[in-house]
Amino acid sequence: MIGAKLGQQLARAGSLGGRSIDHLHLADIAEPGTQLTAGFEVETVVADLARPEVASRLVAERPETIFHLAAVVSGEAEEDLDKGYRVNLDGTRCLLEAIRALDGDYRPRLVFASSIAVFGAPLPDVIGDDFRTVPRTSYGTQKAMCELLLSDYTRRGIVDGVAIRLPTISVRPGTPNRAASGFFSSIIREPLNGRVATLPVPEEIRHWHASPRAAVAFLVHAATIDSGLLGDERCLTMPGVSVTVAGQIEALRRVAGADAVGLIRREPDPSVLEMIASWPREFDTSRASALGFRAEETYEEIIGVYVEDELGGTLPVAGP
Amino acid sequence: MIGAKLGQQLARAGSLGGRSIDHLHLADIAEPGTQLTAGFEVETVVADLARPEVASRLVAERPETIFHLAAVVSGEAEEDLDKGYRVNLDGTRCLLEAIRALDGDYRPRLVFASSIAVFGAPLPDVIGDDFRTVPRTSYGTQKAMCELLLSDYTRRGIVDGVAIRLPTISVRPGTPNRAASGFFSSIIREPLNGRVATLPVPEEIRHWHASPRAAVAFLVHAATIDSGLLGDERCLTMPGVSVTVAGQIEALRRVAGADAVGLIRREPDPSVLEMIASWPREFDTSRASALGFRAEETYEEIIGVYVEDELGGTLPVAGP
Repeated sequence: MIGAKLGQQLARAGSLGGRSIDHLHLADIAEPGTQLTAGFEVETVVADLARPEVASRLVAERPETIFHLAAVVSGEAEEDLDKGYRVNLDGTRCLLEAIRALDGDYRPRLVFASSIAVFGAPLPDVIGDDFRTVPRTSYGTQKAMCELLLSDYTRRGIVDGVAIRLPTISVRPGTPNRAASGFFSSIIREPLNGRVATLPVPEEIRHWHASPRAAVAFLVHAATIDSGLLGDERCLTMPGVSVTVAGQIEALRRVAGADAVGLIRREPDPSVLEMIASWPREFDTSRASALGFRAEETYEEIIGVYVEDELGGTLPVAGP
Repeated sequence: MIGAKLGQQLARAGSLGGRSIDHLHLADIAEPGTQLTAGFEVETVVADLARPEVASRLVAERPETIFHLAAVVSGEAEEDLDKGYRVNLDGTRCLLEAIRALDGDYRPRLVFASSIAVFGAPLPDVIGDDFRTVPRTSYGTQKAMCELLLSDYTRRGIVDGVAIRLPTISVRPGTPNRAASGFFSSIIREPLNGRVATLPVPEEIRHWHASPRAAVAFLVHAATIDSGLLGDERCLTMPGVSVTVAGQIEALRRVAGADAVGLIRREPDPSVLEMIASWPREFDTSRASALGFRAEETYEEIIGVYVEDELGGTLPVAGP
């Protein structure tokens, strides 16, 4: 989803960091839903990055910038240990090794989409930039291992890596994915589309959000920033909005009215609650902010992005 | 070296955690220097753990306790990226996967020898138990990745893992290995044996030490402790002695006199200094101490262990 939106953004801009784009190579395990139209050459590859020859083929033309978003999401990585490690860890390692195998002074900017799932309980109310990465899920473990790899390969001069820990992305468009965090989006998206949504946790649950548009902006900024400013610290927690579920619902009420809010059904699910209770609630992202990464300021803005980008700016249900 | 000493200790004790040992399987990439004699069956395997079939064969008999010490040391892991990742990371992963592949309720205690190299600059004077693991070497990266793997496989019930971050082990017997920290041992060992030693760094350099005997005791304690006491925190920094090079030399003087100290040649090496300057100096290991892990209290004790265990209790050079 973020990858597709990034592709659209690059196509719209036609350039990255002030340099025009000649060629975009899109690789995914699945056929893309829609074809990207751009003013530059777009090549789509359906392949498994965790196979070394695939990674080699992808980097053979020595792209200057690589965005590595590939991921088995949290729920699936927890259910299928093999698949999670193979795609999330081995895929990243194959990519790094394919880059290393190229001789000469090839050293691409590699932007890696990490996750706040690298942080696990016990967590403070506000997590600082230097907080330890001790995940409590296989997904978070795989992301934390990739951060370590990226940092080491960067230190060794093989890539110019930047890992950005994305907040939970909301409001996600489309249908729910297998991420355990899916309800954070669906309690907003479904009512905005006149459909019922299920809320499995109490309204006091606080979490860390940014819009898909902010996520794309993070990726672009990570690709274009002077990486000398990062020094050895190549892993950055991205800014976001810390909001309770109650705050999300209040924002929904302000944007779409009480009828929309009425579509949310409370169906407490202890297993989801247990998982979510150990998740991050808020971050101090001073480092990323100082480096120019920007997210929304309020959850209402985040809903506004969904309405603009996914609903063409108008609400299917009656407003207040 | 630690593996051989652990084998000797197990042979002497004949038991582990109050239970008698039936069978000891020793696996190493190289033929052991001396054969272990014990009151139980000892099997020696020379094999490469990073080959999946080797790991499978090693765990086929379902050992109750596995000590995983295998490592390409820091200097070599920095020189040979392929070998370091293959042995230090893939070897550990193959072992975990081989255990997972066994059906039934097999869940061995897996004691993993990690390292304080998981911590990298910038470092505080005293590093606490919750300090972030951001290594600055490939060796430290590989150890940190293994800690993440071990924690995840433990959380998932595949192993009952305990990772112990060993201090720099001194006084190492024998000849220097390729660890960058080798001089910390050789400035003591060589003079004690009447030989000249080279000191490549200033005497103000402070570092974190424990004896080989303490390291073996850590491993045995990690193998026998009630792991329920650890909860989810499976990675523990081990206690040690924080001492400057000057303090080491003063301890040498007290143990072996001025003549021994006179055998240390100052030959500053900026490349060693640069590496060492970013190394840990001291830890607060409250967690491990509360769990009963014990090291020496002074560097003089550490020298005493070398004299007892390696020199039969007497000094080849004249005492003070």
